[in-house]
Amino acid sequence: MAIAPGVSAQDWAATLEGFAAAVGKDWVFTSEEDLALYKDAYSPFWGEPEEKHASAAVAPQSAEEVQAVMRIANKYRIPIYPISTGRNLGYGGSAPVLSGSVVLDLKRMNRVLEINEKNAYALVEPGVSYFDLYREIQKRGLKLWIDCPDPGWGSLIGNALDHGGGYTTHMYRVHFDAHCGMEVVLADGTIMRTGMGALPGAKTWQQYKFGYGPWIDGMFSQSNFGVVTKMGFWLMPEPEAYLSGTVTVFKHDDLIPMVDILNELENNGIYNGMPFFGSPLQGPLEPGEQLRNPMAPGVQALFAKAGGPTPADFEAYCAANNIGYWAVKLQYYGPPEVIRAQWNYSKKKFSAIPGVKLEDGELLTMPLTEEQKKKVHGVAFGIPSLQIFFIGTRSESNPTPGLGHIWFSPIIPRDGKSIFEAQKVFGNAAREMGLGALNPLQLPGTYWQRAFIFIFGFPITHDPAVNKKNREAFEKLVKICADHGWGEYRTAPAYMDAIADVYSFNNHALMRFHERVKDAIDPNGIISAGRYGIWPKHLRKA
Amino acid sequence: MAIAPGVSAQDWAATLEGFAAAVGKDWVFTSEEDLALYKDAYSPFWGEPEEKHASAAVAPQSAEEVQAVMRIANKYRIPIYPISTGRNLGYGGSAPVLSGSVVLDLKRMNRVLEINEKNAYALVEPGVSYFDLYREIQKRGLKLWIDCPDPGWGSLIGNALDHGGGYTTHMYRVHFDAHCGMEVVLADGTIMRTGMGALPGAKTWQQYKFGYGPWIDGMFSQSNFGVVTKMGFWLMPEPEAYLSGTVTVFKHDDLIPMVDILNELENNGIYNGMPFFGSPLQGPLEPGEQLRNPMAPGVQALFAKAGGPTPADFEAYCAANNIGYWAVKLQYYGPPEVIRAQWNYSKKKFSAIPGVKLEDGELLTMPLTEEQKKKVHGVAFGIPSLQIFFIGTRSESNPTPGLGHIWFSPIIPRDGKSIFEAQKVFGNAAREMGLGALNPLQLPGTYWQRAFIFIFGFPITHDPAVNKKNREAFEKLVKICADHGWGEYRTAPAYMDAIADVYSFNNHALMRFHERVKDAIDPNGIISAGRYGIWPKHLRKA
Repeated sequence: MAIAPGVSAQDWAATLEGFAAAVGKDWVFTSEEDLALYKDAYSPFWGEPEEKHASAAVAPQSAEEVQAVMRIANKYRIPIYPISTGRNLGYGGSAPVLSGSVVLDLKRMNRVLEINEKNAYALVEPGVSYFDLYREIQKRGLKLWIDCPDPGWGSLIGNALDHGGGYTTHMYRVHFDAHCGMEVVLADGTIMRTGMGALPGAKTWQQYKFGYGPWIDGMFSQSNFGVVTKMGFWLMPEPEAYLSGTVTVFKHDDLIPMVDILNELENNGIYNGMPFFGSPLQGPLEPGEQLRNPMAPGVQALFAKAGGPTPADFEAYCAANNIGYWAVKLQYYGPPEVIRAQWNYSKKKFSAIPGVKLEDGELLTMPLTEEQKKKVHGVAFGIPSLQIFFIGTRSESNPTPGLGHIWFSPIIPRDGKSIFEAQKVFGNAAREMGLGALNPLQLPGTYWQRAFIFIFGFPITHDPAVNKKNREAFEKLVKICADHGWGEYRTAPAYMDAIADVYSFNNHALMRFHERVKDAIDPNGIISAGRYGIWPKHLRKA
Repeated sequence: MAIAPGVSAQDWAATLEGFAAAVGKDWVFTSEEDLALYKDAYSPFWGEPEEKHASAAVAPQSAEEVQAVMRIANKYRIPIYPISTGRNLGYGGSAPVLSGSVVLDLKRMNRVLEINEKNAYALVEPGVSYFDLYREIQKRGLKLWIDCPDPGWGSLIGNALDHGGGYTTHMYRVHFDAHCGMEVVLADGTIMRTGMGALPGAKTWQQYKFGYGPWIDGMFSQSNFGVVTKMGFWLMPEPEAYLSGTVTVFKHDDLIPMVDILNELENNGIYNGMPFFGSPLQGPLEPGEQLRNPMAPGVQALFAKAGGPTPADFEAYCAANNIGYWAVKLQYYGPPEVIRAQWNYSKKKFSAIPGVKLEDGELLTMPLTEEQKKKVHGVAFGIPSLQIFFIGTRSESNPTPGLGHIWFSPIIPRDGKSIFEAQKVFGNAAREMGLGALNPLQLPGTYWQRAFIFIFGFPITHDPAVNKKNREAFEKLVKICADHGWGEYRTAPAYMDAIADVYSFNNHALMRFHERVKDAIDPNGIISAGRYGIWPKHLRKA
């Protein structure tokens, strides 16, 4: 049996006994086969000694049981690694940053505690997945949408705490922004409520987020300062209709005004759906669709050119084949007459770009029929699914499916020139490092209205030499990004320290601040050692 | 000369000398007449021994000078009270919570460090007022709006840190939500940047707010954990046009569907301006206007009725005089065709209320003419002013102007029934305590989209007996509110402890958390002792 690092056999036995008394012995896991489930399925250290593992797992079913577990862990100084559902594949899954930590698995805490239809919010526990909340809303027949990421098996709380994003309107798809109120269990077992929840019997815990005094909710995101046991989320009333439209441009530099125009539409609230940027040279714009539809042979041929294709090559191909260089798919939600007016106005603005093509999508009224639900990109309609995993499965176009991937996700400024610079930087780096993953036609995503994010998948293999090369390339890219003023928004345990290292303003003042807070509120350093580069005192490098 | 509490004469002399060396002796204030300016003009302890005063003030002109001041204060354990412009009248002004603190006056740090028109944001220092930023934008001819409170002489940073709100669309009028990135000087003089600012040379400091790791910005709002020296704010591109519309209902209970319909419009993003709720029985809906236009004699007569007027009395009066019972003024910003569609759709939804009256306002296209600017409610157009102070000035209808007021600002749920309950509770309390300030026809405000806020002014007088009575009434109301699950969002120093006391979930777990953080990051307890009820260890009650 494994033992958590730095713990005596005696204390370990007492810990497991304590856990069993707190949650029931069926919910304390120590066998190898049970613990294997907590490994990161997409670990870049697959099969190597550095691969992260848990020494045990414990699954409480209530905040009170979490308190009991934390008190025991605090007493015996057991490293604890809370997970909600542990489904954040590509960002670490359920494996602890500090190998040998006890995974605190919150999946049994899956109660939807409240859904308020009129005020459009829900209060949930960490084990509630997007599927869970969606099904509960359907079961009750409520006219509410959730905003879910792709795939939908993850936890609302876990995703929001990791600063994840979804696919509907900006008011809801920035999941941390759309939360309101928290309940947190601290390292010593103290239970605390934030925002208006600090007022006993509060009537606006899910309506007014700041509460009174310091607003501390953000401290519990991407951190190891506490265990969040409840969180409120604002939901979107079902809109009357949905309308999409696609803007296509044919010249390389047209991307610059395209982004500027969209920025203005978004910053003025005229457009508030998720935009999908892409290059029609690569096929469909929808995420995932590109991978199912490989590039046309003619485009592939351009990539084979010595030194890589130039914008002029692509422009010539676009002109010859009447295919767009860049495009953005826009999605409007609301009453038909309003969203038609919004799209018509958007077209008027985009028509300032010479040669632009403006295509109307179909107007869909809600609720969708079952037939329609199968055809649409579900997450854009608040319908959770696991469809995205089709990308990786074996198919004619994908005869040797991968084993997983690590996301590399830098944030870059929201303008066209920055995209070009990033494409060049990433393209050069990829060539130099012999990577195939970084495509110079790739455009960034836009979960957040004010910034772009590039998301590149680094494949995981079962060949340690390849994994090693990819790990080194990943760390090198982090530094290259930092040299350009770009930073990653989130990462897997393997790279948490490396990325924390580049957020170094004034001799790592922010990290030194986090460490002071960590020592004060978790003095024994039991929660999620190493998460986002924050280590407890006894494990901190000098 | 005054000395800060708990400081020896020798240390005090060394402190003032150090401050003078850091910022220049002209910017260290110790004379009685200079320090009188830092008193709270609206103090509920006017002329009494408890009235808050400063022992000195120091006004640095850069973050580096703030660092120097903090190092000196930390060395000699001098209580420091940072203010931006100190203009938050009704919430404490520039007076320190702990009398005898040194006011750290940041008004000289008034540089607009960056305005990015395309990406619509600004980076400013704490001394930058709404007027300053507005003028700078006008000077440069940029097509950007600011969102300002009423009045506009306050600091963008100070207002956002106090969770203040403005008057344009919801994306901008929740000032803390519309910020992106901070620079903070800690108690020991360490300078720190949050969000992407922690990455040296960051290109997205004002574009992506969460950065990497814990998002700690909220910790510096309504707190005493650091001195914010820079902050980014998202700005609104000038909209093409503005359209208002007024919804009037004639029955007491019509308020319930009116609120529900508006909630749905707002939660779906179909309406995103500031709604003004009010009772036409009281006159115009616009804030301030009511006070210039006293109630009709007929309505005043109803108030004279023994036991107070009933809804039936008001309904009868409304019917007899063809005047609305409740109304809401809506304001739409955007292209004419879009905002017309939004208002038309809104009318369709509100027409579900029997007898509702729907009035179109004038459509105004931007930029406004100078003539138009004089006529409109400026802050709804991002134009800062001091017009609101007309309310308190001497006039025919206000022959004995007040000397100021303290705001009492409870948050209540966003539904009509909660308004009625609050009106009843506040009305009864006002009657019992002999207060005239709480009007049963008053409706709440809506800075935040998901909650209501009542804002009542408690008058300040020069009669200590009256002030004492009002103070007791205020504290009693805080408790009455808490008993109903309602809490205040902000308050003046005189009531910071009393309100902190009711946010007591689990034996004040949240306050105990704040105290642990305070002790860790400001171990000498020098910053803003007592602010929002957070006291340093040496001044904490057992």
